[in-house]
Amino acid sequence: MALDTTLERLTSPWDHLAQENTFVGFLDTLLRGCGQVMFQNNPLTGLLFLVGIFINSALLGGAGLIGLLVSTLTARLLRADRSLIRAGLFGFNGILTGIALAFFLRWNPYLIVYIVIAAILSAVVMMALLHFMGNWDVPALTAPFVLTAWLFLFGIYLFSNLRPSEFILPVSLNPGAVVQTDLRPLPAGLIGAGVTPLNLVEAFFRGIGEVFFQDNLVTGIIFLVAILINSRISALFAALGSLVGMLTALFLFGGNGFWVFHGLYGFNAVLTGIAIGGLFYVLTWESALYAVIGTLVSTIVMASISVFLSPLGMPALTAPFVLTAWLFILPKAGFHVLHPVALTDVTSAEHIRHDFLEREHEAGVGRTVQPAP
Amino acid sequence: MALDTTLERLTSPWDHLAQENTFVGFLDTLLRGCGQVMFQNNPLTGLLFLVGIFINSALLGGAGLIGLLVSTLTARLLRADRSLIRAGLFGFNGILTGIALAFFLRWNPYLIVYIVIAAILSAVVMMALLHFMGNWDVPALTAPFVLTAWLFLFGIYLFSNLRPSEFILPVSLNPGAVVQTDLRPLPAGLIGAGVTPLNLVEAFFRGIGEVFFQDNLVTGIIFLVAILINSRISALFAALGSLVGMLTALFLFGGNGFWVFHGLYGFNAVLTGIAIGGLFYVLTWESALYAVIGTLVSTIVMASISVFLSPLGMPALTAPFVLTAWLFILPKAGFHVLHPVALTDVTSAEHIRHDFLEREHEAGVGRTVQPAP
Amino acid sequence: MALDTTLERLTSPWDHLAQENTFVGFLDTLLRGCGQVMFQNNPLTGLLFLVGIFINSALLGGAGLIGLLVSTLTARLLRADRSLIRAGLFGFNGILTGIALAFFLRWNPYLIVYIVIAAILSAVVMMALLHFMGNWDVPALTAPFVLTAWLFLFGIYLFSNLRPSEFILPVSLNPGAVVQTDLRPLPAGLIGAGVTPLNLVEAFFRGIGEVFFQDNLVTGIIFLVAILINSRISALFAALGSLVGMLTALFLFGGNGFWVFHGLYGFNAVLTGIAIGGLFYVLTWESALYAVIGTLVSTIVMASISVFLSPLGMPALTAPFVLTAWLFILPKAGFHVLHPVALTDVTSAEHIRHDFLEREHEAGVGRTVQPAP
Repeated sequence: MALDTTLERLTSPWDHLAQENTFVGFLDTLLRGCGQVMFQNNPLTGLLFLVGIFINSALLGGAGLIGLLVSTLTARLLRADRSLIRAGLFGFNGILTGIALAFFLRWNPYLIVYIVIAAILSAVVMMALLHFMGNWDVPALTAPFVLTAWLFLFGIYLFSNLRPSEFILPVSLNPGAVVQTDLRPLPAGLIGAGVTPLNLVEAFFRGIGEVFFQDNLVTGIIFLVAILINSRISALFAALGSLVGMLTALFLFGGNGFWVFHGLYGFNAVLTGIAIGGLFYVLTWESALYAVIGTLVSTIVMASISVFLSPLGMPALTAPFVLTAWLFILPKAGFHVLHPVALTDVTSAEHIRHDFLEREHEAGVGRTVQPAP
Repeated sequence: MALDTTLERLTSPWDHLAQENTFVGFLDTLLRGCGQVMFQNNPLTGLLFLVGIFINSALLGGAGLIGLLVSTLTARLLRADRSLIRAGLFGFNGILTGIALAFFLRWNPYLIVYIVIAAILSAVVMMALLHFMGNWDVPALTAPFVLTAWLFLFGIYLFSNLRPSEFILPVSLNPGAVVQTDLRPLPAGLIGAGVTPLNLVEAFFRGIGEVFFQDNLVTGIIFLVAILINSRISALFAALGSLVGMLTALFLFGGNGFWVFHGLYGFNAVLTGIAIGGLFYVLTWESALYAVIGTLVSTIVMASISVFLSPLGMPALTAPFVLTAWLFILPKAGFHVLHPVALTDVTSAEHIRHDFLEREHEAGVGRTVQPAP
Repeated sequence: MALDTTLERLTSPWDHLAQENTFVGFLDTLLRGCGQVMFQNNPLTGLLFLVGIFINSALLGGAGLIGLLVSTLTARLLRADRSLIRAGLFGFNGILTGIALAFFLRWNPYLIVYIVIAAILSAVVMMALLHFMGNWDVPALTAPFVLTAWLFLFGIYLFSNLRPSEFILPVSLNPGAVVQTDLRPLPAGLIGAGVTPLNLVEAFFRGIGEVFFQDNLVTGIIFLVAILINSRISALFAALGSLVGMLTALFLFGGNGFWVFHGLYGFNAVLTGIAIGGLFYVLTWESALYAVIGTLVSTIVMASISVFLSPLGMPALTAPFVLTAWLFILPKAGFHVLHPVALTDVTSAEHIRHDFLEREHEAGVGRTVQPAP
């Protein structure tokens, strides 16, 4: 509570400035776009996300900024609804697209052009999916990013000016092959292998960092703090997601140990946890359990989509999160034990729960009063 | 008619008991869930399906029961509409998921956990698709099973605790390769090769058995009898489907002879035949022909989806049926020669046709009367 | 204008005859079906398309005619809305399906049966997608053709009676492989390599011809004239599409030189240009730019879908156009700088723009008048 009040005092003058000054307003839009990657409509959270990215890699940060800027400007030039733009809804797919293309492709002048075109497309796809999914009042999530980045990554086998980084590596599938399950980093030797506290901490925070393709312990820590600033519930479910992804991969399914260390089973679970845990359903004990099952499922889906794309050597990106969250959000009012949140009412997990409890209270009072007359 | 009356006398006390007693009611729900795999909302049909499965394999039967139980309980715990649960709509994807995972993966303790999680997901996906497809009043069919089972099967390449059975076998595609077209069983020697009456009978009934992944002559016979108990029209179209799948693969397209023998071109045609032949369109001569074309198309789609997944070594499951039936059901009222049935009116093919003829008759009487005044 | 009037004088008696005489009416339906492949609801355009195809290959022309005839008859027998049939909406997927199957499969008697079944399915899928996409007032485009042709092409690996032509060639993906970027035809020696005026002209017109899988300079010229007869705007955007596809592949992305020469980066851009440039959005400077970006994106999508299917050796067909155009049309009214056209109002680009300007004018007059009283 005390933390909330202090932060409000800090952000209030900024909000004021953002409304008055066009340039500050645009900066605010960009930062919110960055924060929306993890559903945090908060410029300070967005700023910390950027800090976390730049600490790990200035190159990826720069590519992300190009994507963020271009996708947001595209939405403005095409005159999308101002409220959508201001909430950062066109920026978050742009920044992810920029980072992903710079991560999976080698740096050269053509790559910048490629990122610019991709960021434009990500804004168009966002509007397309807003319209398409709006039919069921289900969010587009990071689907515009996933679709755009896949289309631009797959194509490179036919484009000599765009060359893959070492992370694009097609493999033939062999059902008899042994999965290496030792928990350890990929360039071996840096840290000892095995289920050690250090390795578990690394895996936990890298799982959060990998949401932005940042394979870095410190970045993961900064990201978790950035979420915590805006929502304790979201931070809790981000942490739960990374934990579930990492622990089930390690101890239940026998997942690839490199993958666990680098957070690759975890980052889709992080996003799934945040989305279902308090945002698209009101946080209750039932929805919390539903969210945990969602994180568990997203871990399996991460493996399956990765396998599906392995003959192409292409990454699953955040598709496991998108698919899992869609499947868990689409039932909506169909499961009466859960309380779905209308898209227009999705703010922060705390506000959503507060409003719900207030309505419940009023309804309860109403119910008690009603018999009277 | 006489058979119908006898059966009604037999099932009526059971229905009475199922309404009074919670435990019998739940048992009834489970059996209907089993029957719904072939659209038969009848506990006796479901019981015979189970008998057919256990005759072939107690292991697959056990895995199926776990799936059936867990998916039905999940829907109850999440408080889905009682009428949907009671009709077995959450059970049929669960039982198929359980059987498929036990068929394509090796037995070990982790597999049970895997089946439980998958069955939970199948109930969530069912509700998601009910909401999604409900938009067009089109049924989810076995899509929740297909999607869930694919997600859980693909992942095993990255999970050392889940190992594939011998049916997971990736192949590289070679357009010049010769397709072996001799009609015969896979472990050769048991039965002579060639288009013999015995081999055709085997292929015909195995095509029906394979709907539940039961590659067994006797099981196929029991399944057909089980359908016949509830609906002669559905049994007719199940038989037509298996025939069309087998005969066109053999004599028109030159399909793989092993596949024909084991009913693999047939089982999707069985389901497509039942669905279009009298359930989602009123049975008329025109819709019967439409259904036969559907079974023919589903045979081709079985080949194409299998080819698509062959680099992964993964099975098509009942996806060919789902895709074909969706394509043939979506046109609905667009083809005026057909009479689509609203989802809430889908009972048995006989009832649907009876109600339709009654309405036609009334409309006819109305039309004759109208000119009078 | 003068050209328009002359053409109207030419086509008017035909239109009269088509309404009076059943046979001429059916012929008119078939020709419009042919024209609708490029959105030109004009029998003369359709006739010229046919001429262009037959000049290149009588075999492909014949296969196309079977597909055109069967799909149109299927829609009539199933009693689809007469107005849809008369506009050629069931024919265009049929003719494309016939040509594509004859292009990618070897000629034999079974192929004719295969084409007939596929053409029947294309009409069913068209109605299914009309119903499905109608939800968002978004056109089915050539999706029924793409889906049908894929299903029938993939299956051939399991059907010995249907054999692939030399254009079905699976390749393993290798990120290190060098893309050959020299602009030249595939059977080398005919024409010198390099960015010569002749090679650019070849690439430009073949890009238009490839919409119907016609890899031929003269056919491409006839196609462009055929479009021009019905709509100068559509012809302009067809040309722009081919140009953008060819030039960006050559100079921006470093595409495969064989592909550029044979128009393979261009034909999806041609269709995307026509669709977005004046048909599903009113032609304005803003929508023209939006259309050009669409053609650019479709070029990249062509590469990516081709790569995705390369382990199967299967072609992308016009899927890149369908996906790109859907993404660019779905935003509709969401981008206020664009003026979307309702599906029922899609006629020719010229009529659409004329009606829009008239409405704008009236609104302008209204606005000026309003303050008066």
